[in-house]
Amino acid sequence: MIFYYAPKTIAVTAHIALEEAGAKYEARRLNFAVTEQRSNNYLKVNPKGRVPALVTDEGIITETPAILVYVAQLFPERKLAPLNNPFQFAKMQEFNCYLCATVHVAHAHRVRGARWADDPAAIEAMKKKVPQNMSDYFRLIEDGMLQTPWVLGANYSVADIYLYSVSQWLEGDGVDINDFPRVAEHARRMQENASVKKVLALYQAPA
Amino acid sequence: MIFYYAPKTIAVTAHIALEEAGAKYEARRLNFAVTEQRSNNYLKVNPKGRVPALVTDEGIITETPAILVYVAQLFPERKLAPLNNPFQFAKMQEFNCYLCATVHVAHAHRVRGARWADDPAAIEAMKKKVPQNMSDYFRLIEDGMLQTPWVLGANYSVADIYLYSVSQWLEGDGVDINDFPRVAEHARRMQENASVKKVLALYQAPA
Repeated sequence: MIFYYAPKTIAVTAHIALEEAGAKYEARRLNFAVTEQRSNNYLKVNPKGRVPALVTDEGIITETPAILVYVAQLFPERKLAPLNNPFQFAKMQEFNCYLCATVHVAHAHRVRGARWADDPAAIEAMKKKVPQNMSDYFRLIEDGMLQTPWVLGANYSVADIYLYSVSQWLEGDGVDINDFPRVAEHARRMQENASVKKVLALYQAPA
Repeated sequence: MIFYYAPKTIAVTAHIALEEAGAKYEARRLNFAVTEQRSNNYLKVNPKGRVPALVTDEGIITETPAILVYVAQLFPERKLAPLNNPFQFAKMQEFNCYLCATVHVAHAHRVRGARWADDPAAIEAMKKKVPQNMSDYFRLIEDGMLQTPWVLGANYSVADIYLYSVSQWLEGDGVDINDFPRVAEHARRMQENASVKKVLALYQAPA
């Protein structure tokens, strides 16, 4: 498999999942500084011009929640998702969707507001609301969605990787992770994970 | 099961899936005109204050892509998802995520811009960009993601219900569905579906 990623993107989530699964894959880094994600070559891989993208023998998969479940299904012995429990699987999907469509989107209004408005003043107005939105959304995670020790309770899953990645945006978004003690403790535990350490080192390395 | 919905919301997607599955459930309508979705009673069901929400014997599930897969798994004989093919399942999830996190979000900037900015001028600026974004996103669906006759090709799935629901927003978003002939043809076929007809009639009925 080939995995396309770029530093400072949500690709880190699926990347850690591939490591956790023990998958064999080649990691290919895109240079967003020269908008390589919009190059003709890459648009053939992912016409959306975004990362992550996972090239498999059967075809290409994009979208973090889709790749996470695919990896979990390919390596069931690693127990990265409750594959045989429809309700628990739904709760994991619910959590992943919330991060994908609500929390990630709220964060993106700070760094990629031009997706939703052309007026520079509007883009600035969006940035202003990001701390409040991220804070509100993590409040719901802290007070209910995040069980302990893991998102789904006793069982670790790819949702934990996803929560960890997104929680690392809080500081840049003007929110103190320590306002959410369970999220902060969860992040500390994730940082001890060897796959997390390995992938973070790769993302922090110079191009 | 109890299913919470409101007219003119994405709840219609999971609602149609429940019908397609032949599930037994009680449908409970929320009155958004009096912000019943923010009432204390409903916030106990879904602290996010949104629909859909599906109350099951095991607990409550929210987020459209999560409910869709749950329903498909509960009624495997209805073949509403490629449950035994990880790659095809991933492609379905990819499509559902794209609708949830990109297309639905783009649409929401016309009707719920106050989520992302307080300044009225910024909210107006967001509205202006909606037709272009929806058009760009449906171009990708038309030119690649939507196979024929169904999203995944030969096999119908919950992704078809989701595409149908979201395609019905185009007109209000200032985009002509006929610019996307395959999407338009897909919508026409979906409108012949008895479950679609039944749920649409319910959503159009007065409170």
